[in-house]
Order: sequence, then structure tokens, then C-alpha cells
Amino acid sequence: MKIGIIGGGQLARMLILAGYPLGLDFAVLDPAPDACAGPLAEHLVAPYDDPEALARLADTCQVITYEFENVSLEGLSRLQDRARIHPPLTALAESRDRLQEKSLFRSLDIPTPPFVAIDSREDLAEAPKCLGWPFLVKTRRFGYDGKGQFLIRTAADMDAAWAELAGRPLIGEGFIPFDREVSVIAVRRASGETAFYPLSENVHKSGILHLARCRPGDAAAAQAQEYARRLLERLDYVGVLALELFEVNGRLLANEMAPRVHNSGHWTIEGAEVSQFENHLRAILDLPLGGTEPVGHTAMVNFIGVLPALADVLAQPGVHCHFYGKAERPGRKVGHATVRAASAKALEARLHHLLALLP
Amino acid sequence: MKIGIIGGGQLARMLILAGYPLGLDFAVLDPAPDACAGPLAEHLVAPYDDPEALARLADTCQVITYEFENVSLEGLSRLQDRARIHPPLTALAESRDRLQEKSLFRSLDIPTPPFVAIDSREDLAEAPKCLGWPFLVKTRRFGYDGKGQFLIRTAADMDAAWAELAGRPLIGEGFIPFDREVSVIAVRRASGETAFYPLSENVHKSGILHLARCRPGDAAAAQAQEYARRLLERLDYVGVLALELFEVNGRLLANEMAPRVHNSGHWTIEGAEVSQFENHLRAILDLPLGGTEPVGHTAMVNFIGVLPALADVLAQPGVHCHFYGKAERPGRKVGHATVRAASAKALEARLHHLLALLP
Repeated sequence: MKIGIIGGGQLARMLILAGYPLGLDFAVLDPAPDACAGPLAEHLVAPYDDPEALARLADTCQVITYEFENVSLEGLSRLQDRARIHPPLTALAESRDRLQEKSLFRSLDIPTPPFVAIDSREDLAEAPKCLGWPFLVKTRRFGYDGKGQFLIRTAADMDAAWAELAGRPLIGEGFIPFDREVSVIAVRRASGETAFYPLSENVHKSGILHLARCRPGDAAAAQAQEYARRLLERLDYVGVLALELFEVNGRLLANEMAPRVHNSGHWTIEGAEVSQFENHLRAILDLPLGGTEPVGHTAMVNFIGVLPALADVLAQPGVHCHFYGKAERPGRKVGHATVRAASAKALEARLHHLLALLP
Repeated sequence: MKIGIIGGGQLARMLILAGYPLGLDFAVLDPAPDACAGPLAEHLVAPYDDPEALARLADTCQVITYEFENVSLEGLSRLQDRARIHPPLTALAESRDRLQEKSLFRSLDIPTPPFVAIDSREDLAEAPKCLGWPFLVKTRRFGYDGKGQFLIRTAADMDAAWAELAGRPLIGEGFIPFDREVSVIAVRRASGETAFYPLSENVHKSGILHLARCRPGDAAAAQAQEYARRLLERLDYVGVLALELFEVNGRLLANEMAPRVHNSGHWTIEGAEVSQFENHLRAILDLPLGGTEPVGHTAMVNFIGVLPALADVLAQPGVHCHFYGKAERPGRKVGHATVRAASAKALEARLHHLLALLP
């Protein structure tokens, strides 16, 4: 069986590495000739919305999936009669517009930070009435890793933000001084079987995920899973779905969802019985899901911009290296490492040593 | 860094899957256009001793390794000035001739079953004087998975064996009614660091490995490791080395060695902190070796000739599937599964269910 993946970055790469042991074959569609999943599979070098390349995927692959939200929804929609596409395009459409996404949360009684549509300079001026101070203004689409957003502390900040963002659909969001950020990685197959990984507790740096700890037995897990379950069912979802939430005074507020495998779930490769990557593949092929229970105590550290020396990483006990084969560039995710230990205390000690390798 | 692998079968495939997360690239040399490692890497379709293909590997790869013993020793020897080749060709030369191999064991005070060179029909007739009855006659080279060998129970069996084997260098070996077969997977990097996995206890069926259980804390481990250590040091070895031994009345007798990753070590993918595949790559790149300690209780079951249905395998908790992407054919290794559980007892229960799927 062959799986087509739109996008040939590290998420595609890790899906492929998880899929070969299941006897699967892969094709990726990515316009970059040096896309890091390219060497591992058939690589169609073409724009994401290239009709011929998409048709080729549809003709040669049993299932088509995608590794990021900014794929061509229009291109994929045209293929729906010819190919199975998972996760469903409705989930993709909802998740890639922050306003639609938060409205979906609201419609499912999933609490969110306050938010408001901003379609004009007047809307921006009025936003603090609804959101309080400070607040965030973000593009509704194409934002990731903290890109395309401004923190508005005073009315004076509005002009600079507007100069940068005007002309694009925007959303204002209340700025939440949260106690922590968590995410839940959920997975559902077509026949309805659903599973959840233990919560990830996430730390960001400059808007990019820096560190994610697996938190088995976390008190917030049941609530987070319940919210994820509502999304899975409403969307008739198939595949892995990630839901990021803020915890504020013991209450969870949904921040955003991603209809795909997610950076905060990378620890599952070594830290769960079956990884999010393998479970995504099982789900989209409607195969029995694998165990999501933790294996040891694990955390994941992202390598952003530059990689530490391979020998330094491998010298550390319990550390598992994932270099993506991408050129180093400031702000780019070029690899990660999973740290595994037999106890929570040993994990923190190992993590401390690993973090010391970072610039 | 790019690694060249001679041979593009499942061992190459699993090396490649272990190597991409380290940021490595791969080229395989295999004459079969459908070699199962082909889709995962650059695939040079040429005979194993093709000078141009070998030169290309030497020119583009930092290290060359091999996945089976019957590669072209002559071809590789010619490259030694141009490329690093690990494991060392001396180990390859010793291991692929059963007589040299057993003589090497003997020279290192590693006990073996009785053996004798058979170079003529007269030698065959004389062999039982040295070996007793019954005994085995085997080709010295190109034997694997029980191929190229005969059990001689009476003098009458000799003619049939001779008719089949005459003209090839042969060895006679005492037939050992062993209590069990074990193997030790050892790994050594150029700078001398050495590590050993827990013993594997192996069960064969029709001469092919059927089942291997990881046996942490086995009483025979220290002795087996000591024998492996002598081999590693004598051969100035770099990479993974497997040593198979018979246990007879509490005593270990070396049966054979393999200068490569080994089927009886496949459980290390899920059952050890770092797999034999990753450790082979670390060793040949002279990088720090990874932990060999067990993760849970594991066993490995080979799929020979035919694969069970993927959904049936995946439905079993703790079972990890490894399908090789090879066409099914009687006697061919087409996949394996690792079973992992939290206790030895739970492992046996899971193993029982998995074995029930086999034909």
C-alpha cells in the first residue's frame, strides 16, 4: 500500500520512517528539491496545488494525507472523488483559520480565551473593550511558530501592528497569563476507535516549541481528552489531531488545534508504546490503533536553527537523536532529541545535561 | 555523512531506518531492482563486485559496510585504500569459511563442537572417528539458514551427501544435542569502546530462526560476552558482531559468528535502549555507543515465507510489526514482529497469541 503525503518536511520524514516497518510505501509532494523527506520516498517536485502531481498521487496512492495546514485546500478538494484524503478537509479548513477554529471550539462548549474578528482599523481600536489589555492581534491564516502576530500593550502599539497586518483577515485574542501550556495528541480511525496519549506539557521560546514533557497521570488529562473527543466526533475525524490548551487557575482554555502529527508529540517515538506517527498511519488506513501508554519517563527538546554535535548528543545516556537532514537556518526546526529515563527525577537530570548542549 | 551498504535486503533496510534519525544518508548496492532497501535510499543496481559501482560507493560514502557475508571480498579489498570499510575484511574472511571460523575460535580458547576438514571422500569416511555419530557435513562457504548441510547418521548417508557436496570445500562437525541455542550481540567502535546486549535465546525451525527471546540476567551471559570480547579484540573489530553458541550441560560451545547485525538481535529495536542497527552505525562512525540495556521484556518472531494479515498483527497489544516489503516465497524471511510486555509472564501470553497467527 502506498501513502501520499503533501509536504516533504520532518513530519513527512517521521511518518515515512514509522511506515516502512508496516510494509507501506510512500510518495511525497513538495516543491523543494531538497525537502528532507525526499531521499526516503518517491518525491514529486511540484507546487502543492499542481494538478498533475496531485492527480498522480491520487492515482498511485491508497490514501493521501498532509503534514501541514497550508496545503492547497482547493487542490485537494478536487481530488476527493478520486482518493481517500485523511484527516478530513473540513478539519483542515476549520483549523487553518483562527477565527473559524475558535468559533468551532465555542460551538462545542470548549472554553477559549476571549476573541474577536478584526476586519478594519476600527475593529482593532474597539478590540480591547472585548479583550482587555494587553491583547494579541494575529493573522487568521498562515501563522505558525509565533509568526504573523503582535502583542498590543497600549493604543500606541496599534498603528505598527496595523501597518504590518492590514489587508489580511485578522483576529484579536485576549492575552492569557497562563500557568502552563499543555497539548493532547488524539487519534481516531474511520471505524471510530479513538485513543489519547498522556498530556504533553510544553515550553515555548520566542514563539517556537522548545521543550515538551510527557506527563502521565496529569490531573488535566481527562478534561483535555474530553475536549479533543468532541472535536474528533464533530469533525468525523480520521488520523492524529493535536489540541493545544492553556491552563489558567486549574481551568483549560483551547488555544489551537492541528489536524496532523504535532511537534509536542515527538516524544511518543521513544516514549509511548506506539508513536503518533505510526498511529496516524494506522488510523488513516483504518487499522487497529496501537498502545498510547508511556514507556519510561520522556521529554523532547527541539533543535532550532543549529544542531549540536552528533557525538555530544549520542554521548548522553537515554538521549535519542532525530536530525532532520535540513540545512541550518535561524528559527528553523532542524532536529529534536527525546530523553528517556526510568524515573521523573532521572529524566530531569538527563534533560539538564542535554539542554546544556544548546546554544 | 553518507553510508554505503553492500546488499539491499532487510538488514540494510533496518540500518537505514535507524540511520536517518542520526542525520545520515545512504546508498545501497544490490543487483536486484526490487531489493527491499532500494526505495529508502540511493540504490545502485549492479553486481556486488561491480568495479564501477564499488568505486562510486567509495567516492561518495564516508564508510562502507555490508549486510551479509557473501559479498565480494575481492572487490572490497581493492577499495581499502580509498574507503573506510567496517567491519574489517579479516572478520569477513574468517567468518565466511566455517573451517577458518572454528579454527579462529579454537585459537582463542573458545570451545566449539568437534570439527574436521573434509577435502575428499576418504576424509568423509574417516570423519566419524573424530566426530562420532551422527555428524554434520557442511559446505565451508555460502551456507546459511540450514542450506548446504547434511546430517550423516550412518555410513550409508555419506554417498548422498557426497553426491550433492563433492567438489566444494567441506567441514565435518559433531552433532551436538544442545540444551538451547543462545547468541550474544556485541558492538565495538574503532576507539575500543565495547558493549553487549543481553543474551538472545533462539529457537530454529527447519534450520531458520523462528523465535528469539531477550534473556536479561541470563547465567550464561558473562561467559558468552567474554568469548565475544576475545573475537572483537583479535579482529580489531568495528561494528556489530553476533556470536551463536550452543549450551550443553551448562557449557557454551561456539557455533558460528556473523560480522554484521543479526536476526537474533532484531528485538533490540523495541527491546533495548538503542537498537543493534543504530549501534552498528554509531560504531562504524566511531561515535559513542548507545545503551544496550533492555526495555521491558521482549521476544522476536520471524515471518517466514508468508506474512500474517497486517490488521491481525496490529490488533495485538505490545506487538510491533516489521514487514520487509519483500515478495512472499517459501523459506524467505519476509518480516518479523517484536513482542514487548511489562513482565516475563505477560510476554509469554502475548507471544502465544502472536504465534497463533502463523501458518
